[in-house]
Amino acid sequence: MLQSELLAKVSKEAPKDEKSVNAQFLTRAGFIYKEMAGAYTYLPLGFRVLRKIENIIREEMENIGGKEILMTIFQPKSLWEETGRWSGGVGDIMYKCDDEGEIGLGPTHEEMLTDIVRHYVSSYRDLPQYIFQIQTKFRKELRAKSGLLRGREFSMKDLYSFHATKEDFLKYYKRAAAAYVKVFKRCGLSSLMTEASGGDFTKDFTHEFQVLAPGGEDTVIYCPKGHFSRNKEIAGDLRGGQKCPQCTETLKEAKSIEVGNIFPLGEKYSEAMKAYFVDKDGQRKPIIMGCYGIGPSRTMGAIVEIHHDERGIIWPKEVAPFRVHLIQIGKEKRVAKAAKDLYRSLQKQNIEVLYDDREDKTPGEKFAEADLIGIPWRAVISEKTIKKNSVELKERSKKSLRLVKINQAAKYVK
Amino acid sequence: MLQSELLAKVSKEAPKDEKSVNAQFLTRAGFIYKEMAGAYTYLPLGFRVLRKIENIIREEMENIGGKEILMTIFQPKSLWEETGRWSGGVGDIMYKCDDEGEIGLGPTHEEMLTDIVRHYVSSYRDLPQYIFQIQTKFRKELRAKSGLLRGREFSMKDLYSFHATKEDFLKYYKRAAAAYVKVFKRCGLSSLMTEASGGDFTKDFTHEFQVLAPGGEDTVIYCPKGHFSRNKEIAGDLRGGQKCPQCTETLKEAKSIEVGNIFPLGEKYSEAMKAYFVDKDGQRKPIIMGCYGIGPSRTMGAIVEIHHDERGIIWPKEVAPFRVHLIQIGKEKRVAKAAKDLYRSLQKQNIEVLYDDREDKTPGEKFAEADLIGIPWRAVISEKTIKKNSVELKERSKKSLRLVKINQAAKYVK
Repeated sequence: MLQSELLAKVSKEAPKDEKSVNAQFLTRAGFIYKEMAGAYTYLPLGFRVLRKIENIIREEMENIGGKEILMTIFQPKSLWEETGRWSGGVGDIMYKCDDEGEIGLGPTHEEMLTDIVRHYVSSYRDLPQYIFQIQTKFRKELRAKSGLLRGREFSMKDLYSFHATKEDFLKYYKRAAAAYVKVFKRCGLSSLMTEASGGDFTKDFTHEFQVLAPGGEDTVIYCPKGHFSRNKEIAGDLRGGQKCPQCTETLKEAKSIEVGNIFPLGEKYSEAMKAYFVDKDGQRKPIIMGCYGIGPSRTMGAIVEIHHDERGIIWPKEVAPFRVHLIQIGKEKRVAKAAKDLYRSLQKQNIEVLYDDREDKTPGEKFAEADLIGIPWRAVISEKTIKKNSVELKERSKKSLRLVKINQAAKYVK
Repeated sequence: MLQSELLAKVSKEAPKDEKSVNAQFLTRAGFIYKEMAGAYTYLPLGFRVLRKIENIIREEMENIGGKEILMTIFQPKSLWEETGRWSGGVGDIMYKCDDEGEIGLGPTHEEMLTDIVRHYVSSYRDLPQYIFQIQTKFRKELRAKSGLLRGREFSMKDLYSFHATKEDFLKYYKRAAAAYVKVFKRCGLSSLMTEASGGDFTKDFTHEFQVLAPGGEDTVIYCPKGHFSRNKEIAGDLRGGQKCPQCTETLKEAKSIEVGNIFPLGEKYSEAMKAYFVDKDGQRKPIIMGCYGIGPSRTMGAIVEIHHDERGIIWPKEVAPFRVHLIQIGKEKRVAKAAKDLYRSLQKQNIEVLYDDREDKTPGEKFAEADLIGIPWRAVISEKTIKKNSVELKERSKKSLRLVKINQAAKYVK
């Protein structure tokens, strides 16, 4: 993509109405545009990152058998009345609009999918089912002040599983947990599978995936060796400094961001909504359910909270909007031609490039913008480098520069 | 994908509350599930089709320079008050929900994008801009009775272009029109670029892309040679049977479905919202705008309205949920192994296959379901075919069967 054609421009000043690191950097660098508290437009750069995160999640959900669907945002009141959640609990944070009767905007989709499943599933032969969607969700949030970390309109991947037996559910729950760790790892996040309360969803123990970050709203008490992690909300007397319940390590306590969660739902929704199946033994039984959520937009915010320095964002490779930020210094024809040739050559090799072809910016401005935007590789073409038939490469996360032959550049940045 | 794992089951009976051909077939075949009037969930098969249509549109929009973003569904009242559209006109079909103040659900995004553009664009050097999104939109529809053709919640691609001069706009308008014809052609639809009124958007002439279909809500008067088409709403005294204004052909009149539209917006929104730029001559001028819409969900409905027979849907190849429907007849181990081997082999060659591995269905049931679902190629493996080391291939759109060697199957269906 040509930077001269990018709609959004980089801004030197931090937006006054944003306090979180993620909203400040993402706004300044032209990834997002605030429409109202907790609702952001994803500009071309931001959309690319969001889409990459969603695709990582999609791949890993498909790897554990997930089938993708797309439910409606509009929620019929009648379904939510079956579970008693239209008002009270999650119903209270559900936006409602009027038409003929009332319509809710989906904050979560247990009711809707349970209704679909009871329509199609009748026998143990129809189970298990693993169904997910990636969709915009809505929740009334009084404290929508953390940029992408807490939205009123936000992107959500919700997977639901349906089982004939508790054993089958537990096996899948573990598979899903492992897939979650993998998703976050690919996004450059080291996640802690953390014990948490079930909130409105369940009375069982549930699990959150927390990533340590000073900007987080949660606090976890965790074993640095990864043997234990519990949300402080349910930690009781447990504190950092005490011994890990699983090993000899000393527990730590730190701020964190919840990027995902998995819930054993048991028979709560299937009982309430009469989602039964006939088992091998001829008995009618309620389906056993689990649900598994990841917020792609919140994950994007978490990545920025963790991967940045004072100059800007440092995108992990798999979620970066581009692999290479090619910067042309100088307007000379020879320089422009060398830069354009490299641009095309990298694209032909399927390497995504943002090409800073602008002629009205100083080298200093271009470098500062590149640092703010945070693309993994910076490649500079100037009068000086082309004399040596070379390009100057630098990783955003490192300080060292290296001059390499232009025709070798692709090898380095791959 | 294994058909035994598909959540949705095929139903022999037409849904009682659906009158349109598209909703009947898509529901019976397990592509969609009705949540309420004008709001459908896309089940695994339907989601695949919707995604393919969206990707065709995405590719063609990128081919004409479109940059993808994602705006919010939530619309701030203040923006719509700038253009006077919060109430009256399109404002009257906008769903509104309450929070702190009022929030609308986007029925279209001129206001929001014009606001973004006026924030970033200040000079003729920043123009032109071509920005699009693919997103869920909402409109109050009293007559949401045509399945995917008229939704209250529906998928929409909206592209907006921003120009310094009218000439530049007109050039792009033609490029966009050509891209639209290409999109619909790839979707198996032959579209007529049709003169239409501007409705709420503009007082200029606009263009709709209409496809002829008995189930359509519109009527067009058109030249069979493709030289002229006008929506009957603005046709005045013009009728089928009269001479084409462009050639010697006789005009026809027929029912049709509007699958896309393009609008010259001129300076309407930029004037109202003060989206100005400084031109080469130093003058401040309002940006000249165009907008270009396609409904992927409506396109999906239109495809079914046009491509079906009495037995079911006949998907055009590029939008079919799978390329091949592999049907195993009989439970014998040899047969199952041959079918499974072919399934894996086709998948390895990146050919998408739905494999009917179910053992509780008769051949007749399987064939009837395959015809209803409408995948382009049917491949049958049975005791009889494997004796000849062969598979029986049939195109959904044709009657002839042919027996080909199993290792040659991929060649035929590619």
